[in-house]
Amino acid sequence: MNGLDSAIRDAGAAAYAAYGSSADANVRYLTRFRTTDPVLYVAKPGERGMVVVSQMEHERAVRESVAAVVTRADAGYLEHIKAGETRWRATAHVIADLAGGPLLVPATFPLALARELETFQPVVLDAAGAVEGMRAVKTPEEIERIRSIQRVTEAAMDRGIALIRSSAPRAGVLYRDGAPLTAEAVRTAMHTLLLAHSCRGVDTIVSCGPDTALPHHAGEGPLLADEPIVIDIYPQDELSGYHADMTRTVVKGEPSPAIREMYDAVRDAKSLGASLVRAGAVGADLYHAVVEFFRDRGYESNMRGFTHSLGHGVGLEVHEEPSLGPLGGALTAGNVVTIEPGLYYPGTGGVRLEDMGAVTETGFDRFTQYEEELTI
Amino acid sequence: MNGLDSAIRDAGAAAYAAYGSSADANVRYLTRFRTTDPVLYVAKPGERGMVVVSQMEHERAVRESVAAVVTRADAGYLEHIKAGETRWRATAHVIADLAGGPLLVPATFPLALARELETFQPVVLDAAGAVEGMRAVKTPEEIERIRSIQRVTEAAMDRGIALIRSSAPRAGVLYRDGAPLTAEAVRTAMHTLLLAHSCRGVDTIVSCGPDTALPHHAGEGPLLADEPIVIDIYPQDELSGYHADMTRTVVKGEPSPAIREMYDAVRDAKSLGASLVRAGAVGADLYHAVVEFFRDRGYESNMRGFTHSLGHGVGLEVHEEPSLGPLGGALTAGNVVTIEPGLYYPGTGGVRLEDMGAVTETGFDRFTQYEEELTI
Repeated sequence: MNGLDSAIRDAGAAAYAAYGSSADANVRYLTRFRTTDPVLYVAKPGERGMVVVSQMEHERAVRESVAAVVTRADAGYLEHIKAGETRWRATAHVIADLAGGPLLVPATFPLALARELETFQPVVLDAAGAVEGMRAVKTPEEIERIRSIQRVTEAAMDRGIALIRSSAPRAGVLYRDGAPLTAEAVRTAMHTLLLAHSCRGVDTIVSCGPDTALPHHAGEGPLLADEPIVIDIYPQDELSGYHADMTRTVVKGEPSPAIREMYDAVRDAKSLGASLVRAGAVGADLYHAVVEFFRDRGYESNMRGFTHSLGHGVGLEVHEEPSLGPLGGALTAGNVVTIEPGLYYPGTGGVRLEDMGAVTETGFDRFTQYEEELTI
Repeated sequence: MNGLDSAIRDAGAAAYAAYGSSADANVRYLTRFRTTDPVLYVAKPGERGMVVVSQMEHERAVRESVAAVVTRADAGYLEHIKAGETRWRATAHVIADLAGGPLLVPATFPLALARELETFQPVVLDAAGAVEGMRAVKTPEEIERIRSIQRVTEAAMDRGIALIRSSAPRAGVLYRDGAPLTAEAVRTAMHTLLLAHSCRGVDTIVSCGPDTALPHHAGEGPLLADEPIVIDIYPQDELSGYHADMTRTVVKGEPSPAIREMYDAVRDAKSLGASLVRAGAVGADLYHAVVEFFRDRGYESNMRGFTHSLGHGVGLEVHEEPSLGPLGGALTAGNVVTIEPGLYYPGTGGVRLEDMGAVTETGFDRFTQYEEELTI
């Protein structure tokens, strides 16, 4: 927690406070406590951070959390509520009592809580994103955790692609077991495999044909022969909260020459992007290198063509720091990032390939070990 | 959107703004757009609300969202970024341009965005929770959606209980197919059924024996004979985002007399609670009626015994308004709430039963149609 301690001191604050459920990645990172309901986290330099939970959650929090656990009752919250304070006011009261001075808070700190806190002491915004910055540099344990989630993710991808591979076209539609093979069936099969490994697939993309020209279209209905099928899967490990992220594009049958050319360009762009990754490389430079590469192959990077960034950090959030887009800064050893070029043309379709790995001093420790074959 | 319009006018504001991904239930409710990345929502009285999305999401947002869709580029965001503004500053700039006057924002509005906005115009906190209030009163369509998710939830519960029922004890542990039946196996079987219906089980509780004394303990490892097994399942429908919520407690074998008595008390408390539900009834009164009922049966409602509230609203969040706890206000027709008394004693174990339904003018339209049997 040294990064946080120095951010608190640099801000002239007495403590750091965050508030949210474990859907808030900062709260989850700092507490390692899984909760649907919001909890309060307060940290003072040189001390172990505290998480304030309801009485009902006390014993579970003691078992799970890396933070010291205090009940709301012990923190005085219930007395403030009994005295007629609102929940925000009572929570601010608790923070003020625990911190005893100015507070450093994250950018997403709830405004209602900040306004109440400001009646007790100054509230300083953590504009630099101290916790986001800590999260972006993974420990060896975090790297191995994410690598293992990527293994499960590849098994799920393999399950989905196997279904498509074993289908047969009839009048342009892929059939399996006498019925059209749908995006939903492929998604469910992948999610079921993930579940058996305690991972959760959320909004997995299985899009086909014209829909693939929309990078984030979820996809639905029967899958088509001779058309690109984009599978983008980013599961979350239930226990740890970490994600993996991968994309493959396949065609059952004969792709159009345009799709085949786009595929080759995207595959080569991915190799190029991966070859440029190392500590100190600048995300925006990698992005622009791929933009230039696509330009040389005759593809735009604007409203069509390569319409998104080259990649992003992955961790407790599926999209987190660092960015490999036009605004991306320098990479650091321990970052876990995706490299995911894509090309999208309405009427023609889309192609995306995505690998994930860790940034090292000398290059890219690629976690993804899964084949790239357009036609299956 | 009349509730929101009048809140904007009452606050003397020109517009309402919210910012978040669809994990933010208010944003999801107002936009009906599914997104992992945060989007901006701005609404002016008498006009259709606007959602501001990246270029990449434009066409998908047009298909999915009930809001008017504007790209970041068209809203001027990219120009502000190019001019060197931070993301928060550029987003505030866009809001200011769209709103043209004071802004009403929700309690959870990000502080960093509020601070930037305040340099353009006043920011008024929606202390009353206008959108939360709208969300708490479901339309007939929302009620039917949640009822149908409850049907799927019961099928999942049935799958889990069937596994336990078909197990056999050996030295105190439940066995099935020659191996111990674990909490994980029961959870995975239930989640797999949910998946086949496009519902997602999250942190489903399958706890057993001493662990049941912790209401939110997830549960792990082999399930035990003659001990309470608490199954609490609150899946989310992937497409709509709505939840259901139900709990049953079962014993394979012979429960202790203490657990049997607790079960009878909890079942009767649930009947009592449900019998008191109607529009105009006060959540805190229902809670206290159950506290008194438990007291008459010899159970506390404090650090042990009945340690949580009687119930809560269910919708895009699994816990939302209204509350049936000590601070709960009046119920309204169209609320969807749980009734879930429970008793928890370290050393003895825990029992919880939970039904869900809609508040009507005359009573409780119970969605849950699932048997209550302690021993199976």
